[in-house]
Amino acid sequence: MRVLGIVVEYNPFHYGHLHHLRESIRLVKPDYVVAVMSGNFCQRGEPAIVNKYARTKIALLNGVDLVLELPTVYAIQDAGGFAVGSIGVLHKTGVVTDIVFGSESGDIDFLKRVAHTLVNQTPEFQAEFKKQLKMGFSYPNARKYALMGTLSDDVAKLSKSNDILGIEYIKALMQYKSEIEPHVIKRVGADYNDPEFKGRLSSATAIRKVVKAGQFETIREAVPPATYEVLREEFEKGRGPVFWEYLEFVIAVFRKMKREEFEKIYSFNEGLDLRFWEAARQTGDLQQFVELVKAKRFTYSRIRRAILHVLFDLEKEKMEKSNTLGPQYLRILGFNTKGRELLREIKKKSSVPLIATASLYKQVLEDVEKQQAEGKREWQVDGDLYIWQFEKDVLASDIYSFLYPNKSVRSAGMDFEQQPVML
Amino acid sequence: MRVLGIVVEYNPFHYGHLHHLRESIRLVKPDYVVAVMSGNFCQRGEPAIVNKYARTKIALLNGVDLVLELPTVYAIQDAGGFAVGSIGVLHKTGVVTDIVFGSESGDIDFLKRVAHTLVNQTPEFQAEFKKQLKMGFSYPNARKYALMGTLSDDVAKLSKSNDILGIEYIKALMQYKSEIEPHVIKRVGADYNDPEFKGRLSSATAIRKVVKAGQFETIREAVPPATYEVLREEFEKGRGPVFWEYLEFVIAVFRKMKREEFEKIYSFNEGLDLRFWEAARQTGDLQQFVELVKAKRFTYSRIRRAILHVLFDLEKEKMEKSNTLGPQYLRILGFNTKGRELLREIKKKSSVPLIATASLYKQVLEDVEKQQAEGKREWQVDGDLYIWQFEKDVLASDIYSFLYPNKSVRSAGMDFEQQPVML
Repeated sequence: MRVLGIVVEYNPFHYGHLHHLRESIRLVKPDYVVAVMSGNFCQRGEPAIVNKYARTKIALLNGVDLVLELPTVYAIQDAGGFAVGSIGVLHKTGVVTDIVFGSESGDIDFLKRVAHTLVNQTPEFQAEFKKQLKMGFSYPNARKYALMGTLSDDVAKLSKSNDILGIEYIKALMQYKSEIEPHVIKRVGADYNDPEFKGRLSSATAIRKVVKAGQFETIREAVPPATYEVLREEFEKGRGPVFWEYLEFVIAVFRKMKREEFEKIYSFNEGLDLRFWEAARQTGDLQQFVELVKAKRFTYSRIRRAILHVLFDLEKEKMEKSNTLGPQYLRILGFNTKGRELLREIKKKSSVPLIATASLYKQVLEDVEKQQAEGKREWQVDGDLYIWQFEKDVLASDIYSFLYPNKSVRSAGMDFEQQPVML
Repeated sequence: MRVLGIVVEYNPFHYGHLHHLRESIRLVKPDYVVAVMSGNFCQRGEPAIVNKYARTKIALLNGVDLVLELPTVYAIQDAGGFAVGSIGVLHKTGVVTDIVFGSESGDIDFLKRVAHTLVNQTPEFQAEFKKQLKMGFSYPNARKYALMGTLSDDVAKLSKSNDILGIEYIKALMQYKSEIEPHVIKRVGADYNDPEFKGRLSSATAIRKVVKAGQFETIREAVPPATYEVLREEFEKGRGPVFWEYLEFVIAVFRKMKREEFEKIYSFNEGLDLRFWEAARQTGDLQQFVELVKAKRFTYSRIRRAILHVLFDLEKEKMEKSNTLGPQYLRILGFNTKGRELLREIKKKSSVPLIATASLYKQVLEDVEKQQAEGKREWQVDGDLYIWQFEKDVLASDIYSFLYPNKSVRSAGMDFEQQPVML
């Protein structure tokens, strides 16, 4: 049995995603396709344009068999943490045999060599890396320059986001000692954050921009019919589009905080706490806030993610533990008939609990701990971390629904009220 | 030397306020008029329509000699706490000889009798009061019904807001053992929260409503020219009008909170914590939030104030201490030439420190503590409470400026950047 795993955000699902999905299937010829998908907040540090259930439905309508949620605490991390979470979910299903990801280089062996160099760091590499960071370069750039001195490959090409992420996927596979086979598909079409609308070749960024400009009909040529229809329904109900700017109130929250309170939050180091504290006092405009915080070593995405880390109270200790142990559950967002079959396999083989009905999350943990105690099955779950990670997903959803354009549908609790999407 | 003290919000200053000011002066014939005024948030639990400096300027232009700030921790309390703060400021100047307040009954002796009954409560009164509260009546109503059995006066007339506040003023004077003489002026014109616009007789509520409806020019007939001009300037700069609805983001903040966190905050008792927690989950609309929390024992004003208590982290212990000890400083918001003379007297006679330049607030405390230690002068100040109360004023301002309609003027720090208004 071959099971293809893919890591997605689908914000929103467009023809580039469809191409990737079809090419991956052609390459691996899997019996099942499982996608691990960001929930209500994405890696760019932004709320998704529509909620995770709507995006799940679109994924299923386009050929994915099962959608599992990437826990929020990983979805809004840099490439490293994002990979630990997403590969962790796929690996811990116990059934995924292959993953395929997009790559600008299209050279899996090159990416493996880089990943290997990064995992087995020589002292020379480490010294060079630190030097570059000290010079003020952002994490990915400092790493690239440090690699240049270590590998004979043309490392310069490592500035592309898919390759950077791909290396992290391979590193995460190594971290989990996973036997999943990684493959790459050479990316075609728009860069993922190319802001220009190019019809069928438009990036998700470009599509969101068009929606924001109030030209929803225009995206019809850039997305499969299912995307268009589901988005239309969501927008009609006032559950979207949700944009990052709606989070502007965080500035008021930041004004309540002392510098020391920032320091406890993940990603606040290298002086980011002071920059946040000062910028929140200087402006009441979220875009300008980010501009004020911006520095060579702080990318826009990192700043936007750090905003969410504060909003969700993601303290350092728990985040580091999360990055060491990986995700503590598999959360089902939706499935089709084949996905239902696959779930039966996962139920037998997964190393962490499977959550189908969110309201039972504590019960699920108790059952698993009981099985463990009785020696019936070997689970790998940290109870505290399981609760913490899951409750952060719930909190993220409750903040997300507050951002809905239509005030009358902003109630909290979507995780508990909505069942997995079944097709 | 006779110094008239008045307690005001001026949100905004209108002809009713002017009438009250002139009548008070006619009655007391003072050498100076000092007003203690709410800062950026008012007793209804709402942000003021324009900031405290603009409202101070209007007060000075209309004949007040000196404006002192009512610390935020009192400004957003019920009648009892509001009176402890405002009378405390006037009393602690050491120079105020008379206060005048509006009254529906116009009967100062009656109000004094009621205050006396409330301060020296008989066991019968207490039992009756508790019984009424248990029946679910709001605090003022329960008190009224309990008084009915105690006083032979026609207590039924005690449902009017000015009389209720007046009784609290008299109680506060008793609490401070103050020699200030209270007087009443029988109120004419609109009730303070009559929502109907009535030209020169319009209430502040009605005037704000007209501004909110976008009909600023209409208020010209309801307010003195100075009010109109200053409001116009503030609105042009985008520093107003500020409305309560702009605080809607508090719902997102509440969704982050656990029930126990509400319990630590002042005014959260009788189950208000659970009602807040639940309502924040049910709606994303601030007006609807208040409707959901509403109950017989929780008035709208109390709910709106409780929202601010959470926003400003006003914990119970510090609030209770504040209500026992009164305000710990006199903060100068503005003065005219006569006010400057009066300040020289206050400097000699006040029992708490006088803050003219906000950035020096810690220095001011140190100086006072030094004088105290050296036996040079008798001060009555609790250092911790002084810092706490003052920093809450600063926080309130920093949240307030975030609410400005014009994003480019939303920077924090107005307390430190703006000097007292001098006319």
